Amino acid sequence: MLPLGSRTEAVQVARVELAALTPEPVVYLGRLGYLTLVLFENLGRAVMATPTTEGKSELTRAAGEMGDAHEAVVNELRALGHDPVAAMEPYRLELDDFQRRTQGADWHEILVTCYLTQGFLTDFSAGLAGGLPRDLRVRVAEILARVTVGEAVLVELLRAGVETSPRLASRLAMWGRRLVGDTMLVAREALEIDGVMPGEERIEPVFTELVASHTRRMDALGLTA
Amino acid sequence: MLPLGSRTEAVQVARVELAALTPEPVVYLGRLGYLTLVLFENLGRAVMATPTTEGKSELTRAAGEMGDAHEAVVNELRALGHDPVAAMEPYRLELDDFQRRTQGADWHEILVTCYLTQGFLTDFSAGLAGGLPRDLRVRVAEILARVTVGEAVLVELLRAGVETSPRLASRLAMWGRRLVGDTMLVAREALEIDGVMPGEERIEPVFTELVASHTRRMDALGLTA
Repeated sequence: MLPLGSRTEAVQVARVELAALTPEPVVYLGRLGYLTLVLFENLGRAVMATPTTEGKSELTRAAGEMGDAHEAVVNELRALGHDPVAAMEPYRLELDDFQRRTQGADWHEILVTCYLTQGFLTDFSAGLAGGLPRDLRVRVAEILARVTVGEAVLVELLRAGVETSPRLASRLAMWGRRLVGDTMLVAREALEIDGVMPGEERIEPVFTELVASHTRRMDALGLTA
Repeated sequence: MLPLGSRTEAVQVARVELAALTPEPVVYLGRLGYLTLVLFENLGRAVMATPTTEGKSELTRAAGEMGDAHEAVVNELRALGHDPVAAMEPYRLELDDFQRRTQGADWHEILVTCYLTQGFLTDFSAGLAGGLPRDLRVRVAEILARVTVGEAVLVELLRAGVETSPRLASRLAMWGRRLVGDTMLVAREALEIDGVMPGEERIEPVFTELVASHTRRMDALGLTA
């Protein structure tokens, strides 16, 4: 499993760099709200594709946490006086498109999608939360912890497959490389404010850290990044 | 929306009749555990098929509650010293088959499936819980309340469709009739103990009540049962 230290480290670096790029709370929460919908659907698809009762049961619990995380984001938006649906709507087309491009063709690909995209986007979102008002930032950290509850079971199910089939391992390694590209793109889009993207010199160090963290996740699966 | 009174009433009658048929806790919880997996997957499918952010968001929250309900059943099994997976496994083939037969061909059919099957099987399960040890019975009632959290949004989304299209209404009415047959069958299977089914004279009054409650759910959708 991914050692907890790796996440913390990447998040620390990313937080410093990203804190100055944090958008307004309604923008941050609106995007996170729709993102948790997409990540929930991916986990739902993983539950359906899983052939064992044990795997289904563990992923259902993880999906339950994701549903709770979504509800918590909706409640934060309401508490700030925003209509949650109106706040999420602007990110719908972009994130639906991300989901379509990354959904995976079979059970193992779906699991890889869940693990790598929720991991990368949680690291990114944790960093980007750095400039939120303090109280909200603390609650967002709790929400993001729920988003990744399924990591352990995803790694366990994937390792079982990867260890017994080198052919599957090589196919999933390719899938992981494809996913990181699409995931970086959708993270970059979140940095654009009023149609303006911050300079590359500000973005690059952040993504270097996030990709290092992605590589550790690939390692945890026994795959070459 | 289905008035709360209707459920309570059906459950009261069903509880009296079913209390004597309550199986061992491990059997009751094992079946309920796998059932919540199936109902979770159905809600997950509903989230995916829903075209609006608002509908997706509300159904995701309902699915989150279903995931939590599943987790609570798993925890009850563990607290009783049982392996949750081994306890759920005996009901897998039967409930997977039920799911396949009832999954629905499009968005509206999926919503009808969620609403009618979770409603019927929650009424049934509440009745069948009547003979469980008191403390467990109280906690099971809390779990079952979470299973049906999505009712209001399912009814709302379905009514919007039914009210604007008589053709859709007549197709969904047919679908509802087909569903109640499959749902009754899967409930009946839960009454079989060691391969022996209780006499029809004991089962019939229960199902008369449960079907009356089903009819009220069809009414709530504006459909003819």
